[in-house]
Amino acid sequence: MSVTRATPKRRRMSPADRREQLIAIGLEMLARRTLDELSVEEIAAAGGISRGLLFHYFDSKTDFHRAVVAAAAAQLIEVTEPDPSLPPAEQLTTSVAAFVDHITANRAGYLSLVRGAASGDAEMREVFDRTRARLAQRVVDNAAALGLALDVSTQLAVRGWIAFVEEVSVVWLSGHRDDVSREDLLGLVGDAFLRLIPLA
Amino acid sequence: MSVTRATPKRRRMSPADRREQLIAIGLEMLARRTLDELSVEEIAAAGGISRGLLFHYFDSKTDFHRAVVAAAAAQLIEVTEPDPSLPPAEQLTTSVAAFVDHITANRAGYLSLVRGAASGDAEMREVFDRTRARLAQRVVDNAAALGLALDVSTQLAVRGWIAFVEEVSVVWLSGHRDDVSREDLLGLVGDAFLRLIPLA
Repeated sequence: MSVTRATPKRRRMSPADRREQLIAIGLEMLARRTLDELSVEEIAAAGGISRGLLFHYFDSKTDFHRAVVAAAAAQLIEVTEPDPSLPPAEQLTTSVAAFVDHITANRAGYLSLVRGAASGDAEMREVFDRTRARLAQRVVDNAAALGLALDVSTQLAVRGWIAFVEEVSVVWLSGHRDDVSREDLLGLVGDAFLRLIPLA
Repeated sequence: MSVTRATPKRRRMSPADRREQLIAIGLEMLARRTLDELSVEEIAAAGGISRGLLFHYFDSKTDFHRAVVAAAAAQLIEVTEPDPSLPPAEQLTTSVAAFVDHITANRAGYLSLVRGAASGDAEMREVFDRTRARLAQRVVDNAAALGLALDVSTQLAVRGWIAFVEEVSVVWLSGHRDDVSREDLLGLVGDAFLRLIPLA
Protein backbone atom coordinates (compact mmCIF):
# COMPACT_ATOMS: atom_id res chain seq x y z
CA MET A 1 0.00 0.00 0.00
CA SER A 2 1.54 3.32 -0.99
CA VAL A 3 0.96 6.28 1.26
CA THR A 4 1.33 9.72 -0.25
CA ARG A 5 3.31 11.17 2.62
CA ALA A 6 6.02 12.66 0.44
CA THR A 7 3.64 15.11 -1.21
CA PRO A 8 5.27 18.47 -0.47
CA LYS A 9 2.14 20.59 -0.40
CA ARG A 10 -1.52 20.07 0.21
CA ARG A 11 -3.25 18.64 -2.83
CA ARG A 12 -6.89 18.88 -3.62
CA MET A 13 -8.40 15.51 -2.87
CA SER A 14 -11.97 14.29 -2.81
CA PRO A 15 -13.29 13.75 0.74
CA ALA A 16 -13.34 9.98 0.14
CA ASP A 17 -9.74 9.98 -1.04
CA ARG A 18 -8.69 12.18 1.87
CA ARG A 19 -10.35 9.84 4.40
CA GLU A 20 -8.65 6.89 2.76
CA GLN A 21 -5.29 8.65 2.81
CA LEU A 22 -5.57 9.47 6.52
CA ILE A 23 -6.66 5.91 7.36
CA ALA A 24 -3.72 4.54 5.34
CA ILE A 25 -1.31 6.75 7.30
CA GLY A 26 -2.88 5.54 10.57
CA LEU A 27 -2.60 1.93 9.44
CA GLU A 28 1.05 2.40 8.58
CA MET A 29 1.78 3.99 11.97
CA LEU A 30 -0.13 1.19 13.72
CA ALA A 31 2.60 -1.24 12.67
CA ARG A 32 5.05 0.33 15.13
CA ARG A 33 2.68 1.86 17.70
CA THR A 34 -0.26 0.95 19.86
CA LEU A 35 -3.70 2.29 19.00
CA ASP A 36 -3.52 4.68 21.98
CA GLU A 37 -0.32 6.13 20.58
CA LEU A 38 -1.89 7.12 17.25
CA SER A 39 -1.89 10.88 17.55
CA VAL A 40 -4.29 12.74 15.31
CA GLU A 41 -1.85 15.67 15.25
CA GLU A 42 0.87 13.53 13.69
CA ILE A 43 -1.53 11.84 11.32
CA ALA A 44 -2.80 15.21 10.12
CA ALA A 45 0.76 16.52 9.75
CA ALA A 46 1.80 13.43 7.78
CA GLY A 47 -1.18 14.00 5.51
CA GLY A 48 -0.23 17.63 5.02
CA ILE A 49 -3.41 18.97 6.63
CA SER A 50 -4.31 20.65 9.90
CA ARG A 51 -5.68 18.82 12.94
CA GLY A 52 -8.89 20.79 12.49
CA LEU A 53 -9.29 19.62 8.91
CA LEU A 54 -8.83 15.99 10.02
CA PHE A 55 -11.92 16.45 12.17
CA HIS A 56 -13.75 17.54 9.06
CA TYR A 57 -13.39 13.94 7.84
CA PHE A 58 -13.80 12.13 11.17
CA ASP A 59 -16.26 13.00 13.94
CA SER A 60 -13.83 12.33 16.75
CA LYS A 61 -10.57 10.62 17.64
CA THR A 62 -12.58 7.49 18.44
CA ASP A 63 -14.26 7.66 15.05
CA PHE A 64 -10.82 7.87 13.40
CA HIS A 65 -9.50 4.99 15.52
CA ARG A 66 -12.54 2.88 14.59
CA ALA A 67 -11.85 3.52 10.90
CA VAL A 68 -8.20 2.48 11.34
CA VAL A 69 -9.20 -0.67 13.27
CA ALA A 70 -11.70 -1.60 10.55
CA ALA A 71 -8.96 -1.07 7.94
CA ALA A 72 -6.54 -3.20 10.00
CA ALA A 73 -9.13 -5.99 10.15
CA ALA A 74 -9.76 -5.76 6.39
CA GLN A 75 -6.00 -5.90 5.79
CA LEU A 76 -5.69 -9.00 7.97
CA ILE A 77 -8.47 -10.70 6.00
CA GLU A 78 -6.76 -9.68 2.76
CA VAL A 79 -3.20 -10.81 3.55
CA THR A 80 -4.44 -14.19 4.81
CA GLU A 81 -6.71 -14.77 1.81
CA PRO A 82 -6.00 -18.33 0.65
CA ASP A 83 -4.59 -18.83 -2.82
CA PRO A 84 -7.23 -20.92 -4.64
CA SER A 85 -4.62 -22.30 -7.04
CA LEU A 86 -2.99 -24.25 -4.19
CA PRO A 87 -4.23 -27.59 -2.79
CA PRO A 88 -6.52 -27.03 0.27
CA ALA A 89 -3.93 -28.17 2.86
CA GLU A 90 -1.33 -25.78 1.44
CA GLN A 91 -3.86 -22.96 1.30
CA LEU A 92 -4.19 -23.34 5.04
CA THR A 93 -0.46 -23.43 5.87
CA THR A 94 0.20 -20.49 3.52
CA SER A 95 -2.58 -18.47 5.15
CA VAL A 96 -1.29 -19.21 8.63
CA ALA A 97 2.27 -18.23 7.62
CA ALA A 98 0.89 -14.98 6.14
CA PHE A 99 -0.96 -14.33 9.40
CA VAL A 100 2.13 -14.87 11.55
CA ASP A 101 4.32 -12.74 9.25
CA HIS A 102 1.73 -9.98 9.13
CA ILE A 103 1.34 -9.72 12.90
CA THR A 104 5.12 -9.92 13.31
CA ALA A 105 5.54 -6.96 10.94
CA ASN A 106 2.71 -5.11 12.73
CA ARG A 107 3.55 -6.29 16.22
CA ALA A 108 2.95 -3.15 18.31
CA GLY A 109 -0.41 -2.35 16.80
CA TYR A 110 -1.61 -5.93 16.66
CA LEU A 111 -0.81 -6.62 20.31
CA SER A 112 -2.49 -3.38 21.34
CA LEU A 113 -5.64 -4.36 19.47
CA VAL A 114 -6.00 -7.94 20.71
CA ARG A 115 -4.79 -7.08 24.20
CA GLY A 116 -7.49 -4.59 24.83
CA ALA A 117 -6.92 -1.13 23.43
CA ALA A 118 -9.74 -1.76 20.98
CA SER A 119 -11.85 -3.89 23.28
CA GLY A 120 -13.13 -1.14 25.52
CA ASP A 121 -15.20 0.03 22.58
CA ALA A 122 -18.22 -2.08 21.64
CA GLU A 123 -17.98 -1.12 17.96
CA MET A 124 -14.31 -2.09 17.72
CA ARG A 125 -15.01 -5.36 19.56
CA GLU A 126 -17.64 -6.14 16.98
CA VAL A 127 -15.12 -5.59 14.17
CA PHE A 128 -12.88 -8.12 15.92
CA ASP A 129 -15.65 -10.65 16.47
CA ARG A 130 -16.71 -10.38 12.84
CA THR A 131 -13.10 -10.77 11.68
CA ARG A 132 -12.63 -13.92 13.76
CA ALA A 133 -15.92 -15.34 12.51
CA ARG A 134 -14.89 -14.58 8.93
CA LEU A 135 -11.50 -16.27 9.38
CA ALA A 136 -13.24 -19.27 10.96
CA GLN A 137 -15.77 -19.49 8.11
CA ARG A 138 -12.94 -19.50 5.60
CA VAL A 139 -11.29 -22.39 7.44
CA VAL A 140 -14.60 -24.26 7.57
CA ASP A 141 -14.93 -23.81 3.80
CA ASN A 142 -11.36 -25.01 3.40
CA ALA A 143 -12.05 -27.99 5.65
CA ALA A 144 -14.96 -28.89 3.40
CA ALA A 145 -12.54 -28.96 0.46
CA LEU A 146 -10.32 -31.24 2.56
CA GLY A 147 -13.28 -33.58 2.95
CA LEU A 148 -13.69 -32.96 6.70
CA ALA A 149 -17.04 -33.13 8.45
CA LEU A 150 -18.85 -29.83 8.84
CA ASP A 151 -21.07 -30.52 11.83
CA VAL A 152 -21.46 -28.14 14.76
CA SER A 153 -18.66 -29.75 16.76
CA THR A 154 -16.25 -29.22 13.87
CA GLN A 155 -17.28 -25.61 13.67
CA LEU A 156 -16.71 -25.19 17.41
CA ALA A 157 -13.29 -26.81 17.01
CA VAL A 158 -12.43 -24.40 14.18
CA ARG A 159 -13.37 -21.40 16.33
CA GLY A 160 -11.25 -22.87 19.10
CA TRP A 161 -8.31 -23.41 16.75
CA ILE A 162 -8.48 -19.77 15.61
CA ALA A 163 -8.31 -18.75 19.28
CA PHE A 164 -5.42 -21.22 19.77
CA VAL A 165 -3.48 -19.66 16.88
CA GLU A 166 -4.16 -16.13 18.10
CA GLU A 167 -3.14 -16.87 21.69
CA VAL A 168 -0.03 -18.88 20.81
CA SER A 169 1.04 -16.16 18.36
CA VAL A 170 0.45 -13.37 20.88
CA VAL A 171 2.41 -15.16 23.63
CA TRP A 172 5.17 -15.92 21.10
CA LEU A 173 5.29 -12.31 19.83
CA SER A 174 5.25 -10.98 23.39
CA GLY A 175 8.42 -12.73 24.45
CA HIS A 176 9.32 -16.08 22.92
CA ARG A 177 10.74 -15.20 19.53
CA ASP A 178 14.22 -16.08 20.77
CA ASP A 179 13.23 -19.51 22.14
CA VAL A 180 10.89 -20.68 19.39
CA SER A 181 11.62 -20.14 15.70
CA ARG A 182 9.00 -18.94 13.21
CA GLU A 183 9.14 -22.39 11.59
CA ASP A 184 8.54 -24.16 14.91
CA LEU A 185 5.61 -21.83 15.61
CA LEU A 186 4.11 -22.55 12.19
CA GLY A 187 4.65 -26.26 12.79
CA LEU A 188 2.89 -26.05 16.15
CA VAL A 189 -0.23 -24.29 14.89
CA GLY A 190 -0.37 -26.30 11.65
CA ASP A 191 -0.10 -29.63 13.49
CA ALA A 192 -2.69 -28.36 15.95
CA PHE A 193 -5.15 -27.93 13.08
CA LEU A 194 -4.55 -31.40 11.73
CA ARG A 195 -5.03 -32.91 15.18
CA LEU A 196 -7.96 -30.80 16.32
CA ILE A 197 -10.25 -30.60 13.36
CA PRO A 198 -10.82 -34.28 12.65
CA LEU A 199 -11.80 -34.60 16.33
CA ALA A 200 -15.43 -33.87 15.73
CA MET B 1 -20.93 -18.88 49.64
CA SER B 2 -23.60 -17.56 52.00
CA VAL B 3 -24.78 -14.02 51.54
CA THR B 4 -26.44 -12.37 54.51
CA ARG B 5 -29.22 -10.75 52.53
CA ALA B 6 -31.97 -11.94 54.82
CA THR B 7 -30.80 -9.81 57.72
CA PRO B 8 -33.87 -7.67 58.45
CA LYS B 9 -32.07 -4.59 59.71
CA ARG B 10 -28.65 -3.09 59.31
CA ARG B 11 -26.09 -4.80 61.47
CA ARG B 12 -22.84 -3.36 62.68
CA MET B 13 -20.12 -4.89 60.56
CA SER B 14 -16.41 -4.20 60.36
CA PRO B 15 -15.45 -2.30 57.17
CA ALA B 16 -13.64 -5.40 55.87
CA ASP B 17 -16.72 -7.59 56.47
CA ARG B 18 -18.97 -5.00 54.86
CA ARG B 19 -16.78 -4.81 51.75
CA GLU B 20 -16.77 -8.57 51.55
CA GLN B 21 -20.54 -8.74 51.93
CA LEU B 22 -21.12 -6.21 49.14
CA ILE B 23 -18.66 -8.00 46.84
CA ALA B 24 -20.41 -11.31 47.55
CA ILE B 25 -23.78 -9.78 46.63
CA GLY B 26 -22.24 -8.41 43.42
CA LEU B 27 -20.75 -11.79 42.59
CA GLU B 28 -24.10 -13.49 43.13
CA MET B 29 -25.87 -10.97 40.87
CA LEU B 30 -23.16 -11.39 38.22
CA ALA B 31 -24.37 -14.94 37.62
CA ARG B 32 -27.54 -13.63 35.95
CA ARG B 33 -26.43 -10.19 34.75
CA THR B 34 -23.68 -8.53 32.80
CA LEU B 35 -21.11 -6.42 34.61
CA ASP B 36 -22.68 -3.27 33.17
CA GLU B 37 -26.01 -4.27 34.70
CA LEU B 38 -24.64 -4.42 38.25
CA SER B 39 -26.37 -1.44 39.82
CA VAL B 40 -24.78 -0.05 42.96
CA GLU B 41 -28.25 1.04 44.12
CA GLU B 42 -29.52 -2.55 44.10
CA ILE B 43 -26.34 -3.90 45.64
CA ALA B 44 -26.57 -1.37 48.47
CA ALA B 45 -30.27 -2.15 48.98
CA ALA B 46 -29.57 -5.90 49.07
CA GLY B 47 -26.88 -5.23 51.68
CA GLY B 48 -29.29 -3.14 53.72
CA ILE B 49 -27.27 0.06 53.39
CA SER B 50 -27.62 3.31 51.45
CA ARG B 51 -25.96 4.00 48.11
CA GLY B 52 -23.94 6.70 49.84
CA LEU B 53 -22.61 4.28 52.42
CA LEU B 54 -21.54 1.86 49.67
CA PHE B 55 -19.29 4.62 48.38
CA HIS B 56 -17.76 4.78 51.83
CA TYR B 57 -16.35 1.29 51.11
CA PHE B 58 -15.60 1.72 47.41
CA ASP B 59 -14.13 4.81 45.74
CA SER B 60 -16.31 4.57 42.66
CA LYS B 61 -18.57 2.27 40.68
CA THR B 62 -15.48 1.18 38.70
CA ASP B 63 -13.66 0.42 41.93
CA PHE B 64 -16.60 -1.75 43.05
CA HIS B 65 -16.75 -3.48 39.64
CA ARG B 66 -13.01 -4.17 39.82
CA ALA B 67 -13.45 -5.79 43.23
CA VAL B 68 -16.28 -7.97 41.91
CA VAL B 69 -14.23 -8.98 38.84
CA ALA B 70 -11.25 -9.87 41.05
CA ALA B 71 -13.60 -11.97 43.22
CA ALA B 72 -15.05 -13.66 40.11
CA ALA B 73 -11.52 -14.53 38.95
CA ALA B 74 -10.61 -15.89 42.39
CA GLN B 75 -13.81 -17.96 42.38
CA LEU B 76 -12.97 -19.38 38.95
CA ILE B 77 -9.50 -20.38 40.17
CA GLU B 78 -11.07 -21.94 43.26
CA VAL B 79 -13.83 -23.98 41.60
CA THR B 80 -11.39 -25.37 39.03
CA GLU B 81 -8.74 -26.26 41.63
CA PRO B 82 -7.64 -29.81 40.81
CA ASP B 83 -8.25 -32.51 43.42
CA PRO B 84 -4.75 -33.77 44.29
CA SER B 85 -6.16 -37.13 45.42
CA LEU B 86 -7.10 -37.96 41.80
CA PRO B 87 -4.70 -39.27 39.14
CA PRO B 88 -3.28 -36.35 37.01
CA ALA B 89 -5.38 -37.10 33.90
CA GLU B 90 -8.58 -37.15 35.97
CA GLN B 91 -7.58 -33.96 37.76
CA LEU B 92 -7.57 -32.30 34.37
CA THR B 93 -10.94 -33.61 33.16
CA THR B 94 -12.54 -32.82 36.53
CA SER B 95 -11.19 -29.26 36.43
CA VAL B 96 -12.44 -28.72 32.89
CA ALA B 97 -15.90 -30.04 33.82
CA ALA B 98 -15.93 -27.70 36.84
CA PHE B 99 -14.98 -24.80 34.54
CA VAL B 100 -17.75 -25.55 32.04
CA ASP B 101 -20.36 -26.03 34.80
CA HIS B 102 -19.27 -22.85 36.56
CA ILE B 103 -19.51 -20.65 33.46
CA THR B 104 -22.82 -22.29 32.54
CA ALA B 105 -24.21 -21.39 35.98
CA ASN B 106 -22.75 -17.87 35.67
CA ARG B 107 -23.41 -17.42 31.98
CA ALA B 108 -24.49 -13.79 31.76
CA GLY B 109 -21.68 -12.42 33.89
CA TYR B 110 -19.02 -14.67 32.39
CA LEU B 111 -19.88 -13.77 28.81
CA SER B 112 -19.96 -10.08 29.69
CA LEU B 113 -16.49 -10.34 31.23
CA VAL B 114 -14.74 -12.28 28.48
CA ARG B 115 -16.59 -10.47 25.70
CA GLY B 116 -15.36 -7.09 26.69
CA ALA B 117 -17.24 -5.40 29.51
CA ALA B 118 -14.15 -5.83 31.68
CA SER B 119 -11.62 -5.43 28.92
CA GLY B 120 -11.97 -1.69 28.46
CA ASP B 121 -10.33 -1.28 31.85
CA ALA B 122 -6.58 -1.98 32.02
CA GLU B 123 -6.79 -3.15 35.64
CA MET B 124 -9.58 -5.65 34.91
CA ARG B 125 -7.72 -6.89 31.82
CA GLU B 126 -4.72 -7.55 34.02
CA VAL B 127 -6.86 -9.62 36.40
CA PHE B 128 -7.94 -11.69 33.40
CA ASP B 129 -4.41 -12.08 32.03
CA ARG B 130 -3.15 -13.17 35.44
CA THR B 131 -6.03 -15.63 35.80
CA ARG B 132 -5.30 -17.21 32.41
CA ALA B 133 -1.59 -17.43 33.21
CA ARG B 134 -2.42 -19.05 36.56
CA LEU B 135 -4.74 -21.61 34.92
CA ALA B 136 -2.04 -22.35 32.33
CA GLN B 137 0.64 -22.77 34.99
CA ARG B 138 -1.57 -25.25 36.82
CA VAL B 139 -1.98 -27.27 33.63
CA VAL B 140 1.78 -27.16 33.02
CA ASP B 141 2.35 -28.49 36.55
CA ASN B 142 -0.25 -31.17 35.89
CA ALA B 143 1.41 -32.04 32.58
CA ALA B 144 4.68 -32.52 34.45
CA ALA B 145 2.91 -35.06 36.68
CA LEU B 146 1.69 -36.75 33.49
CA GLY B 147 5.32 -37.00 32.38
CA LEU B 148 4.93 -34.56 29.47
CA ALA B 149 7.78 -32.37 28.26
CA LEU B 150 7.84 -28.87 29.71
CA ASP B 151 9.76 -26.97 27.06
CA VAL B 152 8.69 -23.58 25.73
CA SER B 153 6.66 -25.06 22.86
CA THR B 154 4.64 -27.14 25.33
CA GLN B 155 3.98 -24.05 27.39
CA LEU B 156 2.83 -22.17 24.28
CA ALA B 157 0.57 -25.09 23.43
CA VAL B 158 -0.92 -25.03 26.94
CA ARG B 159 -1.67 -21.30 26.65
CA GLY B 160 -3.24 -22.02 23.28
CA TRP B 161 -5.33 -24.86 24.68
CA ILE B 162 -6.66 -22.58 27.46
CA ALA B 163 -7.71 -20.11 24.75
CA PHE B 164 -9.25 -23.01 22.78
CA VAL B 165 -11.31 -24.09 25.81
CA GLU B 166 -12.43 -20.54 26.52
CA GLU B 167 -13.42 -19.81 22.93
CA VAL B 168 -15.20 -23.12 22.35
CA SER B 169 -17.05 -22.73 25.66
CA VAL B 170 -18.06 -19.14 24.90
CA VAL B 171 -19.35 -20.03 21.42
CA TRP B 172 -21.17 -23.05 22.90
CA LEU B 173 -22.71 -20.98 25.73
CA SER B 174 -23.70 -18.24 23.30
CA GLY B 175 -25.86 -20.47 21.16
CA HIS B 176 -25.00 -24.13 20.74
CA ARG B 177 -26.23 -25.73 23.93
CA ASP B 178 -29.09 -27.32 22.00
CA ASP B 179 -26.87 -28.81 19.28
CA VAL B 180 -23.94 -30.00 21.38
CA SER B 181 -24.37 -31.69 24.75
CA ARG B 182 -22.27 -30.83 27.81
CA GLU B 183 -20.66 -34.28 27.53
CA ASP B 184 -19.74 -33.75 23.86
CA LEU B 185 -18.26 -30.36 24.73
CA LEU B 186 -16.19 -31.89 27.54
CA GLY B 187 -15.09 -34.66 25.17
CA LEU B 188 -14.05 -32.10 22.56
CA VAL B 189 -11.90 -29.99 24.89
CA GLY B 190 -10.49 -33.01 26.75
CA ASP B 191 -9.49 -34.77 23.51
CA ALA B 192 -8.03 -31.46 22.31
CA PHE B 193 -5.70 -31.43 25.31
CA LEU B 194 -4.53 -34.99 24.72
CA ARG B 195 -3.86 -34.25 21.07
CA LEU B 196 -2.32 -30.80 21.44
CA ILE B 197 0.00 -31.08 24.39
CA PRO B 198 2.22 -33.94 23.30
CA LEU B 199 2.79 -31.96 20.07
CA ALA B 200 5.84 -30.15 21.39
